[in-house]
Formats: sequence, structure tokens, C-alpha cells
Amino acid sequence: MNFSIHTIPFGIFSFGESKKCLATAIDDKVVDLSYLANEGFFDDFDIPRPVFSQPYLNDFISLGKKKTGAVRNLLQTLLKNPTPEVMEAYFYYKQVDMHLPVKVGDYTDFYSSEQHAYNVGVMFRDPENALLPNWKHLPVAYHGRASSIRVSGTPVHRPKGQMKPKDADKPVFGPSKRLDFELEMATIIGKGTELGESVSVNEAEDYVFGFQLFNDWSARDIQAWEYVPLGPFLAKNFFSSVSPWVIPIEALEPFRIPAEKQEPEVLPYLKGDALSQFDVKLEVYLRTSTGEEKKISTSNFKHLYWTVAQQIAHHTVGGCDLNVGDVLASGTISGKAGDSYGSMLELSWSGTRPIEIAPGIQRTFLEDGDTVIFKGYADNGKIRVDFGTVENTILPSK
Amino acid sequence: MNFSIHTIPFGIFSFGESKKCLATAIDDKVVDLSYLANEGFFDDFDIPRPVFSQPYLNDFISLGKKKTGAVRNLLQTLLKNPTPEVMEAYFYYKQVDMHLPVKVGDYTDFYSSEQHAYNVGVMFRDPENALLPNWKHLPVAYHGRASSIRVSGTPVHRPKGQMKPKDADKPVFGPSKRLDFELEMATIIGKGTELGESVSVNEAEDYVFGFQLFNDWSARDIQAWEYVPLGPFLAKNFFSSVSPWVIPIEALEPFRIPAEKQEPEVLPYLKGDALSQFDVKLEVYLRTSTGEEKKISTSNFKHLYWTVAQQIAHHTVGGCDLNVGDVLASGTISGKAGDSYGSMLELSWSGTRPIEIAPGIQRTFLEDGDTVIFKGYADNGKIRVDFGTVENTILPSK
Repeated sequence: MNFSIHTIPFGIFSFGESKKCLATAIDDKVVDLSYLANEGFFDDFDIPRPVFSQPYLNDFISLGKKKTGAVRNLLQTLLKNPTPEVMEAYFYYKQVDMHLPVKVGDYTDFYSSEQHAYNVGVMFRDPENALLPNWKHLPVAYHGRASSIRVSGTPVHRPKGQMKPKDADKPVFGPSKRLDFELEMATIIGKGTELGESVSVNEAEDYVFGFQLFNDWSARDIQAWEYVPLGPFLAKNFFSSVSPWVIPIEALEPFRIPAEKQEPEVLPYLKGDALSQFDVKLEVYLRTSTGEEKKISTSNFKHLYWTVAQQIAHHTVGGCDLNVGDVLASGTISGKAGDSYGSMLELSWSGTRPIEIAPGIQRTFLEDGDTVIFKGYADNGKIRVDFGTVENTILPSK
Repeated sequence: MNFSIHTIPFGIFSFGESKKCLATAIDDKVVDLSYLANEGFFDDFDIPRPVFSQPYLNDFISLGKKKTGAVRNLLQTLLKNPTPEVMEAYFYYKQVDMHLPVKVGDYTDFYSSEQHAYNVGVMFRDPENALLPNWKHLPVAYHGRASSIRVSGTPVHRPKGQMKPKDADKPVFGPSKRLDFELEMATIIGKGTELGESVSVNEAEDYVFGFQLFNDWSARDIQAWEYVPLGPFLAKNFFSSVSPWVIPIEALEPFRIPAEKQEPEVLPYLKGDALSQFDVKLEVYLRTSTGEEKKISTSNFKHLYWTVAQQIAHHTVGGCDLNVGDVLASGTISGKAGDSYGSMLELSWSGTRPIEIAPGIQRTFLEDGDTVIFKGYADNGKIRVDFGTVENTILPSK
């Protein structure tokens, strides 16, 4: 962990038997914001001190960007040249426990990477019509399970479920044989809407607090059997994981880049004055139980056809309400190159092209004991913003 | 509203400017449980009095069935021959406001009525293969949107969205032209599970607190365009509605009936010693803005292929955790007869068979100003248990 002064992430930590409370981080230190609050550092912003002593960030996020932005700015000043008083709030990262930072209300998973949708379409359906007809007209999405989202470090048991082997005449039950990760970015909603209210593309980023790395764990064999006609269910809801730190959207301003032109033209409610993506490098590492580790994918948050602003506009256009703490995940982010795909399904091309982790060690899908690690960072040579990691180890089925 | 002594429903009410708190109901009276609690009526059960003064039932439900069952039993005694002291807690139903009774964590929608799945399959896909291959092997379900669930009485604005008219070469945007209801029953989860824990069919009903009428409002034209490959999204998430009273599962014991035999045989984790359904009559009424009203469907909670216990066993078999207040909706409940279908889509056979509401007034899908009313009740000649109603009026698109 190494957070620059440009990052100022927000998370939830505890130390030993202490209660959970809010934290930021600088370099390899965790900074106890409840301590700073109780010393009066944030009193000028008219924020009740207990907001910094909650077990989730939600109350803090609910203050709105004016106040959370003021806290961010002050922290950049305080942590640049910390006084001894400020340093009283420091902990070494390795000394503390990090927790799920946001209490998630509803979780939506988009499907916004064209290469990923294309790859899945080729493998599961028809190479000639890999993208379904709706894909370039709307940001396809489905509702995911909020309850089973956990923080980095939580182990994941291989799920059991129904699958139907090729040529079998009926389904079988057992541990998934095609356990997979999905490399995603989670958008954390920072401002709620009323039922019936729509948010335009141009104002949509006002509703974004920040971002986290997101692993949408998936069991491909369970998914293939269950997903028609209503979408994935048990194939996904056994577990999802997030990195411990929420990176505020303000930290990504230096890394904003124009989105690519969309063709065919989208409907007016999906148009914006200046659609943008964020240039954030994403890496996937696989570590075996014997300690062999390899980077198996290098992707980028920018490899999305639909922007976060368009996702929010689409999500609300029918009147669905958003709440602070909702998660809008990007969907698997795959680049064009074969080594930038965001899932084992794509990297091993449905298991037909094993990936070499080390001499004699290959993977198609994930095995018990494997650890999957996502890392993310933005770096323009002058400014670097890290996302930290989301890292989970696979345990055998219960 | 007319609740027998056998019902003892639980809900959340307020009177004038009073705070929300817990209530039950008897005949046409609402009974303020916070008043009875503060008078000490429940002190023997070791329940903190503030549990009855919450804006949701969740804390009460979390006490567990032993305590909530004791409250239920005591209320049956108290309300049978109420003393003047007990009657101090009475309000006339028309004097109070009823609120959403349960703070919903996650909402899952099943698809468990065979006739409904068959009807949809015939209309949308292939009459020869109306049921998809997985349908009789697992209770198909998807995750719905929890945030947009509202209580009976809340108006619903006709949603706008993308749809693709037949033969058009690209989608259009506008108010849905095929707005529909779905007649469902919601199961309210009463006990949580840990991530990774599975619940067997035989113990599954221990996790059920009770039931509510549920209307899964749907926009068929939006759904048809968006739902491949990940399931319905904006077609459903603009609104869902529930009846104000949760009927405890104990009240349905007299109406338990054996479930029909499942063929083909299901996998062992879906088998139970005595699978049962509940004989609860369900009715749908449509009332126009000019006051014409007609009963347009008569269905029954028992018209399900999969039981609630099987739904819970399936939901948890991969390790997905459940929490108190989660909703598991049944999916549209359609009986075999054409006048027992649970949606306009089926009743009007995709708009091809208009339904006469009154002379000269026909409907295929729902129009602005229409009110949809679900009623439910169980009655064996000796005991009657009502569910109340869920009733919502359609307003034009915003």
C-alpha cells in the first residue's frame, strides 16, 4: 500500500479491539479520522464529530461533496507536512484491520466493456452476432446481490450448484468446476435521487462519490445452466469483493480522457456534452497455494464503451431511485489485446487455452488455494493515484 | 380491511404527526403496539420496549420466532376480549397512515408458477418449447431492485424507456405502452444466514417470518428490448408495491396443503419430507379513473410449482447469505384457467384479446388513471385470514 497525497482515499479501519471508524491513508500509513475529528480538526465544516466514528462511510458520504471535498482538501494540507499532533492519528497499515467501507444498499452490475461482451457472445452464442442488438443502444445491466459483498482479504468458498455437463441429459449438483473472477470497477453513489427522478448525463457525476476495485466472482458452469431467461443468479451471488479504500472521483480528474465516439448514435438521454473515461491501469495477478505468482492481465478502466455518467442516466431514466452507498459496477473490463481480458473465461478462451503461471503450472479456471489479486493505479508521470488491492483466496467447497 | 383474531398481522403506522411505530390489526381497527409495550404488556418476554417504536418491523422480526410468536399469542388473548386499557391502543384504520413495513435488504424475484412461465414462453419464444430446459430442475430467479419497493397507496408514474417497435430498425424512447402488473406473494425473511451457509428444504420455513401481497410492476415493451442476455432491469426497477400488513406464517398453518408431485425428480438438495403450498385466494381488480371496477383475475398462492422452502434452499445452496427483511417474491402466480392469469400480458394474451372492464371500456395493458388492486384471503369455512390489499394508481409519465 502506498497512497500519494493526491489520493486521499476513504476507508473503515479498526485497531486491535477498537471500534470501527473512518480513515484515510498516506504512504503506508492509515490515518484515524475519528481521532482528528475529536481533536476538532473538522469543526469548521459543521460536521458532527460522530460521523467519523461510524462503521461505514455512508453518513460521511451523505454530507455531500461540498463538505467531503473540504475534508479532502484539509487532509491534503495536514498530511503534506504533518504536525506531531496529526501524526498521533497515524497507524502502520500492517497493524490495522480494514473493513467493508460502504454499506451497500443496492448493487447493479453493468456489462459495459465491448470487448468483454463480444468475447462472451462469441463463446456462448454466435461469432457472427456476438453483440446482441441492444448492446450499442443501451448500457445493459442487471441487479446483483448486495448482501454478499465483502472486503479484500475475505476468503471465498468455491460455490456448489447445479450445472449441466455437455451431452448430459439432466443436471448434476456439486462444486463449480469453472470458478472465475471478473475485473471490474465499482462506482459508489454519493447522492440519492427520489423515486421517479431522472438524472441527465451532464449532471450524473454529481452523484458519484468515488470508485473501488471490484471482483464479481462467477461460476461459469452454474451460470451457463441457470441464466436463461432472467439472468445470472447463484452463479454470482455467492460472493463479490471490493478493495478497502474508496478513491474519491476528485482524485481522478488528472486522468480524465475523452470517451471514444459511439456509433450508432445513441438516444438523446444518453448524450452528454463531454463524455469521458478515466485512464486507470488495472492488473490481475494469480498466486498459487505454493507461492507462484504471475500477472495474468493488464487492462484499464478506460476500456468501456459506456461511461459512468451514461450508466447513471440510464439507471434513473425510468425513475428508479438511487441511494447513497449503492454500487454500480462496470462489468468485466477487457481490452482488445488477449492479455488484457478481465476474466479466466476470456483469458483461457473458455478453458481451451491454458495460462502458464510458472513452469509446469497452468490454469484454465481457478483452483482451490489460488489467490486472485487486482491492483489499480493512475500515473501520468507527475501524479500517481493508487487504488490499493482486492485480494481473495479460494477455499474448497464447504 | 377486516382482520380476524386468527390473523394478527404486523405493520407500521402513524397517526397525524406521530412517529411511525409497530401495529397489529383486528377487525377494522389498528392497534398501536408501542402503546401496549409502554404499558408493559410485553415486558414478560424480555423485549426492549423501543423495539415497538421503530419505523420498520426489522428489529421486531430479528427477535426470533420464539419471542414474536409469544407476542402473537398474547395479542390473540388481549384482542379477543379487549379491556378498556387495551382499547386505548385502538385506532380506526381510516384514521391512520400505513407505511412500508419492512426495510428490504435484498429483493429476489422467483419465476415459480408453471402456467406463467409457460404462457410467457409461448408468447415470447416458442410454443413447442415454452418452458426452458432448466425450469423444472431449479427455481429460476433473478435479483430485483430493493430501493423502489413502496407500500400500497403510493402512485406509480408510467416509466419511460427504450423499446424497439416491431420492424423498426432502431429503438425509440418514450413512455411505456405496455405497462403491466404481476400478481405475486412476497416472503419476508425472518432469520439471517452466514455467508457460505446453506439451508435445507426441511428447515427453510424457520427462516420465514411471513408474507405480503406483492405487485411486481412491469413495462413489457422495455423488457422485451433490454432483457437479453442478463435479465430484466429498467422494465421492473421503476416500482414495486406491497400490502401494508405482513401476515405471519403461523396464521397460514390451517391452509397448508400438500404440494403437487414434481416430475422430473428434483436434485436431492431440493427434496423435502413434506413439501407444501398455502391455499390463499388472490384476486386482481382493475378500476378506471371513471370509477368502473372489475375483478379481472382470480388466482391462488398454491399455483406454484416450487415451494417457498425450495426457493430458500436453492437461494442459499451456493452460500449466498440471507438477512432479516429480505424479500423473496414468488413470481407471477397464474392458474391454469384463462381468468386466473396474474398479469395483463397473459390475460390479454400479449394485447390480442382485450378485457372488458365495463360496456365500452376495454383494456389490453394498463392506462393512466387505472388503479390495480390485489386482494388476498384464506378461508376454510371456520377460519379466515385476510391479507388486506395492495392498491396503486397509475399517473402519467413525468
